[in-house]
Amino acid sequence: MIQFTKISLLACFCCLMFSKVKSQSNFTIQSPDKKISLSVNQSANKLIIYNLKFGNEFVIENSLVGFELSKPKIKLNTFTWLSTDTSSVNETWKPVWGEVSEIRNQYKKLVVHLKSTSNVLLDLEFRIFNEGLGFRYYFPEQADFKHFIVKNELTQFKLSGNHKTFWIPGDYDTNEYLYNTTLLSEIDATKAANQEKDIALQSLIGKNSIQTPLMMKSKTGLYINIHEAALVNYPVMHLDLDKATLTLTSHLTPDAVGNKAYLQTPFNTPWRVINVSDKAEKILESKMILNLNEPSKITDASWIKPQKFIGMWWEMHVGKSDWFKASGKHGANTENVKKYIDFAAENNFDGVLVEGWNQGWEDWFGNWKEDVFDFVSPYDDYNVNYLSEYAKQKGVKIIMHHETSGSATNYERHIDKAFDFMKNHGMNTVKTGYVGKIIPRGEHHDSQWMVNHYERVAKKAAENQIMVEAHEPAHPTGLHRTYPNWLANEAARGNEFNNAPTLGLRPEHETILPFTRLMGGPMDYTPGFFHFNLIQYDPSRKQKVKTTLTKQLALYVTIYSPLQMAGDFPENFQKYPDAFQFIRDVPVDWDDTKVISAEPGEYVVTARKKKNSEDWYLGSISDENSRKMNFKLDFLKENTEYEATIYKDGPKASWDKNPQDYVIEKMKVNNKSSLSLQMAAGGGFAVSFKKL
Amino acid sequence: MIQFTKISLLACFCCLMFSKVKSQSNFTIQSPDKKISLSVNQSANKLIIYNLKFGNEFVIENSLVGFELSKPKIKLNTFTWLSTDTSSVNETWKPVWGEVSEIRNQYKKLVVHLKSTSNVLLDLEFRIFNEGLGFRYYFPEQADFKHFIVKNELTQFKLSGNHKTFWIPGDYDTNEYLYNTTLLSEIDATKAANQEKDIALQSLIGKNSIQTPLMMKSKTGLYINIHEAALVNYPVMHLDLDKATLTLTSHLTPDAVGNKAYLQTPFNTPWRVINVSDKAEKILESKMILNLNEPSKITDASWIKPQKFIGMWWEMHVGKSDWFKASGKHGANTENVKKYIDFAAENNFDGVLVEGWNQGWEDWFGNWKEDVFDFVSPYDDYNVNYLSEYAKQKGVKIIMHHETSGSATNYERHIDKAFDFMKNHGMNTVKTGYVGKIIPRGEHHDSQWMVNHYERVAKKAAENQIMVEAHEPAHPTGLHRTYPNWLANEAARGNEFNNAPTLGLRPEHETILPFTRLMGGPMDYTPGFFHFNLIQYDPSRKQKVKTTLTKQLALYVTIYSPLQMAGDFPENFQKYPDAFQFIRDVPVDWDDTKVISAEPGEYVVTARKKKNSEDWYLGSISDENSRKMNFKLDFLKENTEYEATIYKDGPKASWDKNPQDYVIEKMKVNNKSSLSLQMAAGGGFAVSFKKL
Repeated sequence: MIQFTKISLLACFCCLMFSKVKSQSNFTIQSPDKKISLSVNQSANKLIIYNLKFGNEFVIENSLVGFELSKPKIKLNTFTWLSTDTSSVNETWKPVWGEVSEIRNQYKKLVVHLKSTSNVLLDLEFRIFNEGLGFRYYFPEQADFKHFIVKNELTQFKLSGNHKTFWIPGDYDTNEYLYNTTLLSEIDATKAANQEKDIALQSLIGKNSIQTPLMMKSKTGLYINIHEAALVNYPVMHLDLDKATLTLTSHLTPDAVGNKAYLQTPFNTPWRVINVSDKAEKILESKMILNLNEPSKITDASWIKPQKFIGMWWEMHVGKSDWFKASGKHGANTENVKKYIDFAAENNFDGVLVEGWNQGWEDWFGNWKEDVFDFVSPYDDYNVNYLSEYAKQKGVKIIMHHETSGSATNYERHIDKAFDFMKNHGMNTVKTGYVGKIIPRGEHHDSQWMVNHYERVAKKAAENQIMVEAHEPAHPTGLHRTYPNWLANEAARGNEFNNAPTLGLRPEHETILPFTRLMGGPMDYTPGFFHFNLIQYDPSRKQKVKTTLTKQLALYVTIYSPLQMAGDFPENFQKYPDAFQFIRDVPVDWDDTKVISAEPGEYVVTARKKKNSEDWYLGSISDENSRKMNFKLDFLKENTEYEATIYKDGPKASWDKNPQDYVIEKMKVNNKSSLSLQMAAGGGFAVSFKKL
Repeated sequence: MIQFTKISLLACFCCLMFSKVKSQSNFTIQSPDKKISLSVNQSANKLIIYNLKFGNEFVIENSLVGFELSKPKIKLNTFTWLSTDTSSVNETWKPVWGEVSEIRNQYKKLVVHLKSTSNVLLDLEFRIFNEGLGFRYYFPEQADFKHFIVKNELTQFKLSGNHKTFWIPGDYDTNEYLYNTTLLSEIDATKAANQEKDIALQSLIGKNSIQTPLMMKSKTGLYINIHEAALVNYPVMHLDLDKATLTLTSHLTPDAVGNKAYLQTPFNTPWRVINVSDKAEKILESKMILNLNEPSKITDASWIKPQKFIGMWWEMHVGKSDWFKASGKHGANTENVKKYIDFAAENNFDGVLVEGWNQGWEDWFGNWKEDVFDFVSPYDDYNVNYLSEYAKQKGVKIIMHHETSGSATNYERHIDKAFDFMKNHGMNTVKTGYVGKIIPRGEHHDSQWMVNHYERVAKKAAENQIMVEAHEPAHPTGLHRTYPNWLANEAARGNEFNNAPTLGLRPEHETILPFTRLMGGPMDYTPGFFHFNLIQYDPSRKQKVKTTLTKQLALYVTIYSPLQMAGDFPENFQKYPDAFQFIRDVPVDWDDTKVISAEPGEYVVTARKKKNSEDWYLGSISDENSRKMNFKLDFLKENTEYEATIYKDGPKASWDKNPQDYVIEKMKVNNKSSLSLQMAAGGGFAVSFKKL
């Protein structure tokens, strides 16, 4: 499936030459398009220093690398520079599913072979793309250094200015924070975290600690994004900011005893990734993180299918029904689930998510209890055999829900039988959940043990031909390339936070998400709310969904995911059949993607070409401001007529006053056409372009 | 299988009366034989106080009870005394296997119903036997108190004198210490622990913390033993000594974050057990701990068989071969194991233990590595299919070895397949091992999570009709009654420590073990060493086995276990066929047991009647002193002639100079006969009595 087109390895003579001359300790390499350049140097006191430039402008100023170990108790930060290798790669590969059908992987590579003054061999591998830099540490096999324990990673990212920054507080257990937009110097994670009242569990790191993907914009107009790729067998990296020097330093998530990672040579760390461009759209189009992940480990991927689904979920969040049976309004009863199956079948949804189907919800949260669910015991009003058969007849799949309440040990104990149960009932997709304090106690959602757990679940699911989406996992880092059955994750503040009484969401939220959380991979954001005042369900719910209706439609395009929910429940969709048509139509797998226009915190306009089709879909969203967007349709196929169906905010629409005012227009267009469309405050529009 | 003969519940009127009169807060109850009396009182400041007397002598002076919780953050130590129940029980039951065929369970019961001043309902249940006291806490179901987290248990045992004490240092991760014999006031656990150099992992609690079972002897000649029974879903109790008041206080083993137990009502704690007698022999014969455990959960126990086995194990310890293949002297190769199977078949052993059969031993220890073994992948020189078939033909079972290296999470992940592998290869007994730091990291061998793990393994083994013996588990507390497939444990310093270069064992060791570790249940002590100077295997090994040869024989009787290894390897047994005959003959299941004479730290003489037979076996062991033992054979069946075969130390025998000097005599005896036999320094004798 993957086409390798290796261009060249620099001649060995060249490498040897480098390893002999003095200049070995000062090495510069440029991106294929020569716009970005990396320098790696050695200081007089044996430190290794790198910096990164975009044109003549520093993106990362001189920054250090290295480690502190707790076993053996040594630092790896002063080195002998042994030798240097360079090479370049230019290849393309085809993802199993995605935003585009083919991905180019083009970079120049620099490997610096080091030996620490404490006698440990350590390589630094840099890959420089047209979009930025990825680098990682590699511990080769060596005689006297095999097992080791990381106390701290010392990687620095020294920024060149007091950038505008889109950030959430560093936290070992949650990434469900609202984004903050401030200058670097104004970051106060403690203050931001203290304003949050609706996150199930917080483990704040400190005032100056923030999370990746971290989006920044320099005063000179550079867009800079820092994240990690291929987070495997290693804890999540957070970032500590030193405001005096504007330096970010890697802050790894600790385990129960304060260690960070238990490793064994040979070992590659995850990639530290710096995406940079003078165009915001290029950040969103970058495939660097995917390119830095390993190819798919699933040889036969024919059973993996992007999916659109509905589910019994939002009705529980808004208080119409409940997860646990003794509540007296148990949602997952046979009759109710049947209704969802019928609706899914009528509207061509692939799946129906059913939450609250299994015993254990009575005391599932807040007790740090280990044995909560067994994942195979339905409540007695949920006829799993009947519903499995019924769904099968209707051509719909029931999506399994495995809420673990954070008790990962318990989930691992039951997972084999749980997957057997799924297969015996014709289910092949599972939504996992990790709400609550982690067990093993003292571990965190972001610690190495849990990072390994999420991967174990994805691997075991793959062995069972099961697709996974995880809620409350560690932040995604492109592993969906390696495990394409791992379709999506939550790992951010989702649409459900429209139900949160305190901060909720802000209209700008979805314009920041693509530049932050979504850099790591697809999200189950659960768009598609058609009702906005939640008080209609429950008098205590004063909160509102903070978008217009057509913005909810646009999210199916601006937020990429191979697994898209239609979040609202059937009767609410049935009231707006014309608008609902867009959700019925919009695909979840694409041949191509064009980010037409974007600015973090303000707007995103994205067009995508349906898989194996000439049809296109476009989504455009705005923050709290009304905006007119003008754009050409030059992405459409040449010499081809399309019927465009435009779902746009009505003239009186606004997220806070009139979210349900919308207009649907149809017109003929081609690739010479332009559109000029108004978005309401907190609004947006969606367009389908069907080839005539 | 269990016969209940409930005698009576005191009339309810009686209980009500107690709950009305003032004297409810001062309650005394006596053992069935009236020798032991318990008083429970309430102080003016609402504390609950108990004390225990043997005759007129205090065993436990006024001592407090209670808890400190970390969630909710309250203390449970001041109470309203709500009411009092009393009852008595007199019943017998038959163990699946054991030292006796029938066990009497006779006690008086006192339940004090309390409500803490923080409004938590809590019962104190006391059971007073002729042998001592067991008491536990019970948290009934109640409206506003369901899940809770224990920070500390506040149970006190205030001793009445500065007793002679047989103790080991309190340690969360090991109970493999050498026993110390000092006055209570002289205890220094830190000093004792620092002298130990050969224990794989130590997590010392502190200078004044010691372990149970704790054996003491008062100046007045009372033998007092403190332990716990039915340790289920709760951490191991250690004891903190306050030397000023000679008070021991419960010290529970913490988890990774410092909590002790995560509990949910209704919940019973383990029993706190005080065994007391003026005769040392009565302590050893007590069945109180078994009586305080729940009846067997295994309804069909027909597949559970006490076993005698040999194994590939000691040859590894003494350096003759090794566990891991790359050593160049891999023990568990097909040819070598075949030899063991042949020897087992020739000598009527039930099983052959094979250690080092599976891949992973290269780096199994010391790295806190999680994924060490998969428990199903043999080394390539170990032909598991061939050997399974060969063993079957020979009528021998291969005993599986599951060393986890402390990585319990990894074991739980693989255990289903590991048990399937065993069944597919005709194995039905597993030796588990937990050498090394526990994973989940931060947990301890003795913490609640691991206590639950050991029980989970026993339960899952039972579901698979597999018998278990665990090495390096928490101290046993009589759970072999509830899970009779859990045959034995190590959980103490075993015979293998004869190979430890620093402290090793002392000749007194096995005279202390029955009064300490063995109070909780059977041990896989691995007696049966016939070679004593380990230098013969390896010039670096200066250490010696510190017994005589016939003392090694006697251990098969003085140390009770349904799973007895013949520790040495075949060629060493073959050199002493006459002495080896005792090991061939001695059974591992008994109808009756008489402790003829015993003094902790000095000597033990025990006789046991073979299951379903009139034959008896007797073992007698001494400490470092030579002793003559005179005793009657009145335990033999009346009017019956027996052939006694006496295996005794030779005239020149001593543990340090001449351990292999032994004499075998045969004579006819009956229940009117007496024997007078000399034990050498560090020696002993063994006798078989076969009915003629």
